[in-house]
Amino acid sequence: MSLPSELMNEMTAALGPDNAVWAPAAVEERTRSCLPQSHIPDGVVTPHTLEEVRAVLAAARKHNVPVWTISTGKNWGYGEKAAPYAGGLTMELSRMNRILEVNERLGYAVIEPGVTYAQLHDHLRVHAPSLWTDSSGSTKDASVIGNALDKGRGLTPYADHFGALCGLEVVLADGRVVRTGGGPDNNRCWNLYKWGVGPYLDGLFAQSNLGVVVKAGVWLMPAPERYDFMAFEYTAGADRFPAFIEDFRSLIFQNAIRSRPHLANDFAMLCIVSQYPHDLAAGQRTLSPEAMAAWRKKFGVSAWTFGCGVYGSRGEVAHQKKRIKKTFARYGVTRFIGSYVNQGRWGRLYRWAVHTGMRWMGKSPELIEAIWPAINLFRGVPTDQYAKQVYFKHYDRKPTDTIDPARDGCGFIWIGPVVPFTGEDAARAMDLARPVFAKHGFDVFIELIVESPRALIALFGVFYDKKSAEERARGAAWYKDMREAFLDAGYPPYRVGTGSQPGAFDRSPVLRDVVHRIKKSLDPENILAPGRYGTPPR
Amino acid sequence: MSLPSELMNEMTAALGPDNAVWAPAAVEERTRSCLPQSHIPDGVVTPHTLEEVRAVLAAARKHNVPVWTISTGKNWGYGEKAAPYAGGLTMELSRMNRILEVNERLGYAVIEPGVTYAQLHDHLRVHAPSLWTDSSGSTKDASVIGNALDKGRGLTPYADHFGALCGLEVVLADGRVVRTGGGPDNNRCWNLYKWGVGPYLDGLFAQSNLGVVVKAGVWLMPAPERYDFMAFEYTAGADRFPAFIEDFRSLIFQNAIRSRPHLANDFAMLCIVSQYPHDLAAGQRTLSPEAMAAWRKKFGVSAWTFGCGVYGSRGEVAHQKKRIKKTFARYGVTRFIGSYVNQGRWGRLYRWAVHTGMRWMGKSPELIEAIWPAINLFRGVPTDQYAKQVYFKHYDRKPTDTIDPARDGCGFIWIGPVVPFTGEDAARAMDLARPVFAKHGFDVFIELIVESPRALIALFGVFYDKKSAEERARGAAWYKDMREAFLDAGYPPYRVGTGSQPGAFDRSPVLRDVVHRIKKSLDPENILAPGRYGTPPR
Repeated sequence: MSLPSELMNEMTAALGPDNAVWAPAAVEERTRSCLPQSHIPDGVVTPHTLEEVRAVLAAARKHNVPVWTISTGKNWGYGEKAAPYAGGLTMELSRMNRILEVNERLGYAVIEPGVTYAQLHDHLRVHAPSLWTDSSGSTKDASVIGNALDKGRGLTPYADHFGALCGLEVVLADGRVVRTGGGPDNNRCWNLYKWGVGPYLDGLFAQSNLGVVVKAGVWLMPAPERYDFMAFEYTAGADRFPAFIEDFRSLIFQNAIRSRPHLANDFAMLCIVSQYPHDLAAGQRTLSPEAMAAWRKKFGVSAWTFGCGVYGSRGEVAHQKKRIKKTFARYGVTRFIGSYVNQGRWGRLYRWAVHTGMRWMGKSPELIEAIWPAINLFRGVPTDQYAKQVYFKHYDRKPTDTIDPARDGCGFIWIGPVVPFTGEDAARAMDLARPVFAKHGFDVFIELIVESPRALIALFGVFYDKKSAEERARGAAWYKDMREAFLDAGYPPYRVGTGSQPGAFDRSPVLRDVVHRIKKSLDPENILAPGRYGTPPR
Repeated sequence: MSLPSELMNEMTAALGPDNAVWAPAAVEERTRSCLPQSHIPDGVVTPHTLEEVRAVLAAARKHNVPVWTISTGKNWGYGEKAAPYAGGLTMELSRMNRILEVNERLGYAVIEPGVTYAQLHDHLRVHAPSLWTDSSGSTKDASVIGNALDKGRGLTPYADHFGALCGLEVVLADGRVVRTGGGPDNNRCWNLYKWGVGPYLDGLFAQSNLGVVVKAGVWLMPAPERYDFMAFEYTAGADRFPAFIEDFRSLIFQNAIRSRPHLANDFAMLCIVSQYPHDLAAGQRTLSPEAMAAWRKKFGVSAWTFGCGVYGSRGEVAHQKKRIKKTFARYGVTRFIGSYVNQGRWGRLYRWAVHTGMRWMGKSPELIEAIWPAINLFRGVPTDQYAKQVYFKHYDRKPTDTIDPARDGCGFIWIGPVVPFTGEDAARAMDLARPVFAKHGFDVFIELIVESPRALIALFGVFYDKKSAEERARGAAWYKDMREAFLDAGYPPYRVGTGSQPGAFDRSPVLRDVVHRIKKSLDPENILAPGRYGTPPR
């Protein structure tokens, strides 16, 4: 405990005792992590207003204490709530959760960083039913702003979360408040025109530590006239996978697919629909090809699976479906099953028919149950269904309600290198990853996330037993090797875990210096989140 | 002439005498402007390579001389080649015009700042025929990078020029070279993944002076399976204009219109298709309503006109056309005439039929002739056809070939406030503008540019006699009043003329300070373009 008691007293007085936590056990519980290595701060503060945020920063400046800011800290397996150093203050903005404005005609909301996907979604259903919010595939309780500033991704046409931010209100290290956009202070286009006047500064506050974003405009998608959903199973041989990726890009590039699907390999899909088959592993760290085949068969899972939303007018959707089907039928099975989530009698009948048909085709009930949240996710309905996969290995079963993998001691870690959207690059990324998984004794988990018509994010992950020091070390070593392998190959990760953030620019020294200079110009005492994304730790 | 002779000698030796111009008359010719007020530098240098750019900056640092950088300087009526101060060096990058890479599969090119739309377009036709470049509506000889960094606009689905940049190579004031994107130096996604790792820094180099961009990735559009073009004439009453704007937004928001049309008022359209009717003005500064009506009738021009590209698969285009027609038929006449530019016999026959039909409907041959370049512009074929309008008032006729309004002494100036895409805001913007036009004795020129589903740029312009000091002063006074009126109303201009750049952030003092601090951290001696967009002049 190294915080000045004066600071603790000031914070307790300013925020109230419930919102300034100093007891080590309580602090540990509040900042627990799924990552293999993480540090504990000296205290956690949860301001409720802009003025309280300024009070925290004023106290931090006065006592020269670093402040690690998080929104809700739910980006499990990436940064979470952990700073790359021990001690200091963690400032969590979850109590700043006001939805300040929703403009249904112009399709945006102005919100605070504590607002979650579920909250925004529920609000829209009541107050602006013609708008959809995108949602991360992880948890419905993640912060909309936090995810966007960490460059997280969704699945609808508005999947680019940082791209959908427009107009930030930021508290600087010196306590001053600034609005980006460059207009006059009464700028009526603050949340409408992205690039603003003069240099575009919003980008400075993504994956960085140059200010505390306390308010942001978020663009929302118009509900389309018609929505449908395709479930796809890849059944062609592995040799045709690169050609499949090329055709996939073509559909995205031509705007025939407007959503941003995630292609899951067999292991990734099985994490979602079942528990780890420790019996099949037979005491080995990883499953043999035969064991994988048996497990796959049991649940009716293909080598690759993905879901995909289709959006537009009635006529456009019909045409897109025809085009999508024609392309993908060459590589597997396409099923348009958006009606599965329909209300009423016909919906029930449809579900019964799908269920019966799929069971007949050897699909497990668990696989069929995963359809509902998938169809919803592609129309922006947040869910915890997929995040539950992190309980699949070291727990007997997945939770049925609220999840909190950090609290529950789930150990896992993600790395998502960006690769060009080509068949060769997708194949090369997998070839790079497989030996690293094998070296460290983990099964190969891959999701290929469509970032844009030009780039894929190859998401890899491992699950380890957080209670075991050996397993944590193995997870950390896997991450380090993956990171090196992909950086060597020129594929930078789209976001990195807290531990690697201080070294984020070690391979681009001039850029690192540019970021350092800007940091110094705006936060000369290095109060705000020192070490986040390439800026100097203390 | 206040440049140190040593500097001039060094530059002449380094770049060659043709590329370092010091003679006042030659310098004046090289930096001439259409703006009412502009300054002349002490010299113009035109480096050819990255190393030469660094040599210019090294000399400028050594002798403490400011360097105003321009690409080709063709943003006539905005910034052009003029600095907001007299003297110093102007560095023009038009000789750095290499197309370094075109990737047809992934849809991008890497180019230097001297590359023009026409050059890129011609290159693609030969080397990557499945890709289209967007083009500014102004001139085919504008710089692709320069226009994008000034946040210029085009008309296709890739109209957002700054948004289409991905990956910059920048020379800093200290001569070091940095690549944005944050990856390792061998980053294979430099031109593919926009937001990169860590803070997104590309935005720092738009409308600013923090570095010299010498290379950039530019995303290119895939040629669609089918392209068509709609010409629209607004024939409903003025009272229905706000409802028309609302319906327009709806189509854009729902992605039924993917292009980014410009709605021209009658005067703006008449500038394109005819010369100023000095006879109808009868000695007055502006045309009376009766004179306007007579002029409109003569050329068959409606109150509002726009063209609009339609893109997609054959089926999608058919559906979009149906939807567009259904909506706009309520407000005027829709004509889908993309086939007008078809090659061969049927194309000729089609043109003859359109020509005959339109003549019969009272359209002038000049109006019909404007169709061809419009259809082409919406498929990314650059043209000078529309820029020629600036010759419409103080010249007897428009040039038939290459244009250079600055050289030819055309006087004009644009201002483009951003307004929310609503009927009320569009109407309010016009209500704000009209009295300012009237006060200064100019006819009302309006184009409403679709920026996005959420914002319009209300582009206003005046044409004056550059030779007359009184007319120049009147133009400058109009601009000042327009700028004030729109800033007061909270509608900031999307780009500003050089003269207003130093004061760009005068109404947002904290933001101005942030920009100043960043400037100081990267260019402490204020060498690069002092005064550009809110940073301190010298």
